[in-house]
Amino acid sequence: MSALPAQPAPTPSPTPDPATGAAVKAMDRAHVFHSWSAQGLIDPLAVAGAEGAYFWDYDGNRYLDFSSQLVNTNIGHQHPKVVAAVREQAAKLCTIAPGFAVDVRSEAARLIAERTPGDLDKIFFTNGGAEAVENAVRMARLHTGRPKVLSAYRSYHGATAAAINLTGDPRRWPSDTASAGVVHFWGPFLYRSPFHSADERQECERALAHLEETIAFEGPQSIAAIILETVPGTAGIMVPPPGYLAGVREICDRYGIVFVLDEVMAGFGRTGHWFAADHFGVTPDLLTFAKGVNSGYVPLGGVAISARIAADFDQRPYPGGLTYSGHPLACASAVATINAMAEEGIVENAAEIGEKVIGPGLREIAERHPSVGEVRGLGVFWALDLVKSKETREPLVPYNASGPANQPMAEFAAACKRGGLWPFVNMNRTHVVPPCTITEAEAKEGLAILDEALSAADAHTV
Amino acid sequence: MSALPAQPAPTPSPTPDPATGAAVKAMDRAHVFHSWSAQGLIDPLAVAGAEGAYFWDYDGNRYLDFSSQLVNTNIGHQHPKVVAAVREQAAKLCTIAPGFAVDVRSEAARLIAERTPGDLDKIFFTNGGAEAVENAVRMARLHTGRPKVLSAYRSYHGATAAAINLTGDPRRWPSDTASAGVVHFWGPFLYRSPFHSADERQECERALAHLEETIAFEGPQSIAAIILETVPGTAGIMVPPPGYLAGVREICDRYGIVFVLDEVMAGFGRTGHWFAADHFGVTPDLLTFAKGVNSGYVPLGGVAISARIAADFDQRPYPGGLTYSGHPLACASAVATINAMAEEGIVENAAEIGEKVIGPGLREIAERHPSVGEVRGLGVFWALDLVKSKETREPLVPYNASGPANQPMAEFAAACKRGGLWPFVNMNRTHVVPPCTITEAEAKEGLAILDEALSAADAHTV
Ligand SMILES: Cc1ncc(COP(=O)(O)O)c(C=O)c1O
Ligand SMILES: Cc1ncc(COP(=O)(O)O)c(C=O)c1O
Repeated sequence: MSALPAQPAPTPSPTPDPATGAAVKAMDRAHVFHSWSAQGLIDPLAVAGAEGAYFWDYDGNRYLDFSSQLVNTNIGHQHPKVVAAVREQAAKLCTIAPGFAVDVRSEAARLIAERTPGDLDKIFFTNGGAEAVENAVRMARLHTGRPKVLSAYRSYHGATAAAINLTGDPRRWPSDTASAGVVHFWGPFLYRSPFHSADERQECERALAHLEETIAFEGPQSIAAIILETVPGTAGIMVPPPGYLAGVREICDRYGIVFVLDEVMAGFGRTGHWFAADHFGVTPDLLTFAKGVNSGYVPLGGVAISARIAADFDQRPYPGGLTYSGHPLACASAVATINAMAEEGIVENAAEIGEKVIGPGLREIAERHPSVGEVRGLGVFWALDLVKSKETREPLVPYNASGPANQPMAEFAAACKRGGLWPFVNMNRTHVVPPCTITEAEAKEGLAILDEALSAADAHTV
Repeated sequence: MSALPAQPAPTPSPTPDPATGAAVKAMDRAHVFHSWSAQGLIDPLAVAGAEGAYFWDYDGNRYLDFSSQLVNTNIGHQHPKVVAAVREQAAKLCTIAPGFAVDVRSEAARLIAERTPGDLDKIFFTNGGAEAVENAVRMARLHTGRPKVLSAYRSYHGATAAAINLTGDPRRWPSDTASAGVVHFWGPFLYRSPFHSADERQECERALAHLEETIAFEGPQSIAAIILETVPGTAGIMVPPPGYLAGVREICDRYGIVFVLDEVMAGFGRTGHWFAADHFGVTPDLLTFAKGVNSGYVPLGGVAISARIAADFDQRPYPGGLTYSGHPLACASAVATINAMAEEGIVENAAEIGEKVIGPGLREIAERHPSVGEVRGLGVFWALDLVKSKETREPLVPYNASGPANQPMAEFAAACKRGGLWPFVNMNRTHVVPPCTITEAEAKEGLAILDEALSAADAHTV
């Protein structure tokens, strides 16, 4: 089974060329400063090429990409239609300032607006997710005239000043100097319930009550926005219980608070719909996107803006911008990506593979492995929550572990790579987030490698 | 005269196609939300194509680009070598996560590190200038353990939260809610001296004394960094007096403050050197770049980091990142841009055209026009400071004017466009910032149009 019309071309076998790989890596270590890393402790793999769901190094190793890089290559690597569009646009017009109108920018905005929920029909383009969040926050503050923004623990919103302060994971801590105006609350997460709930219905009720109480104690008239990942991604792919997002929408309306959904990771097919919000029938006031919009072939992100908020900036200038807003090359790749995803049924494929292959496959795996505490997700957006014991649910490694404390997860990741699978690992979890284009055969190949690698995690259960 | 080996190919005459232009614009107005603009008051020009120093619309109008878009197309539009490199890389590998080593990323970092001053040999890549500034600020705060950052009035550093708070122009005001830890001081600017100085030497001395006194009153032990544009760009192209930057370097050393030079606009050939810092023999601890690094063909920026600061993150992780750090397509375009600029003597061309054509030409123009108060700049980085009266130096329009108060500048800009010149206008200034590739003939063509358009400004002098 596959919703995709044709099989992708067979991935070329990598031709080993270890000398070039070593030179690339040596130059990297001499001059490239890597994000989120201790520069002296990393040993980056030199990548020689990529196609579809695979990439390969210079030593003859090929990896099935169950990470979609940073969960962005929704359309897979080197999709021929997107590559062709980038090449064509490069020959025509690489760059133009944001003040002009240009065909591919107009068309990208139209295609995005056509797919965003409700009346989110004006598109402000940025280079990536953090800048999208920064601008959404500015719009919300100016729209309401209020200072505070509420965001959730267990979240990631980017690494510029406002975005990192909103983030609810440890990456925030070192940059927390100027978090004025940000308040963190707890979202629903039944498996590790902050509210000691017995079931999804109760978790939803209690999470909404907690949010309302937090708003009451912060002062509703001081709150500009609530920002949530529709389905929190890096923090653990916690699909919200039915009614939660609709409840937040209702609370926002009651207090005149702007509702921002961050779909940088969850958007553009990842969940088996164009937007994760589509699963819940909820329309936010602002929706941030990046990653899947063009699978990261060229840096691009943005904010989809409701008519009501856009109207604020009809007669007074919107006070934000960036040199590369609506970059032509990025917009051309978004146009080609969205069109290819529509033509080839790639969003439908993500839904189908998730429902028929990955979901059932992971649940089967969970039964066999004492280290798998919970399987959760949808589309091609899944998490395995690894534990020391299914009974206590104690995480396999402590929150924010590093070095020896993180050994169990490091061993598991190494086992995946030895098996030819590139995993997405965060804290005590591994995420199963392949491209939306993944075939049944590829998904099964990956699940089999995962199955074997989990023995490394099982060895650390009690 | 021209340092460039060959004349660029003749720019094609635009083929009028007003219907397509109207459609592009209509779709833009329906769906594109523009930066720094009142959406209901703008009428964006639909651009059909560009080459070298020209771009054209759908109505048969061609414009000589004296703005380099947003002062980023240092190599001109559609440089064949850069276009070829983007096309080639697109066919090979569009995107890969920041954690890997990849040939074009290694090579781009090497080529940049080779050119940055002193030991700024580690390169952290971002998507643009604001993110570069955000990361420089984070590095400085973590390196020193201190909270405050000093920046100058009359500056622009970007529009994400930390970057906009550092900015010293009115674009900061609407986003000023969370500017904790930022202190603005005054830099040297003899023509409108904040220190009532009589000459450059005195301006330099007084500006340094003012900075030292500000540091004393803020508490040196609380200051992480001083950030300055080497030559402030958007704020007016104020070339610092001899000794000023060396003096700031000395002050930073004395108090253990990180010295950040923002070369997002001034870097990569704009001033007739690879970096503006080269004019002054000064090496900062961190240098931010974007724009000219690849002329914006693909979004790219970054921070060049000194050995001492990079070493901080050798054993502990650097806590910052972004999905598209070191994007392969962006890096490939940087490699091609830097190589082409070196091979074709483009930086030398910028220096020569500035010294022999633009500088003398603008000074001649200034003599003829009562509205031109001062000509300042170097390379292809010049400003005309327009005034109501040469004697009083009263700006032609008030600071941050809009609507009717800004009419004189609006009339001047319209006259430029009617003449076939696209100007860069900010407040009471027009900047002459063509590509570094501009030929003598093109520069003279532009100066002649400017000369005529200035009558519109003259009409408002007293
Ligand atoms: C939900 C979410 N928001 C924002 C971001 C930040 O995006 P970027 O890395 O492009 O700045 C991310 C990145 O992973 C994300 O997952
Ligand atoms: C000196 C300087 N720094 C930073 C920036 C911000 O760069 P970006 O617009 O790419 O975020 C600019 C943009 O004009 C700039 O001129």
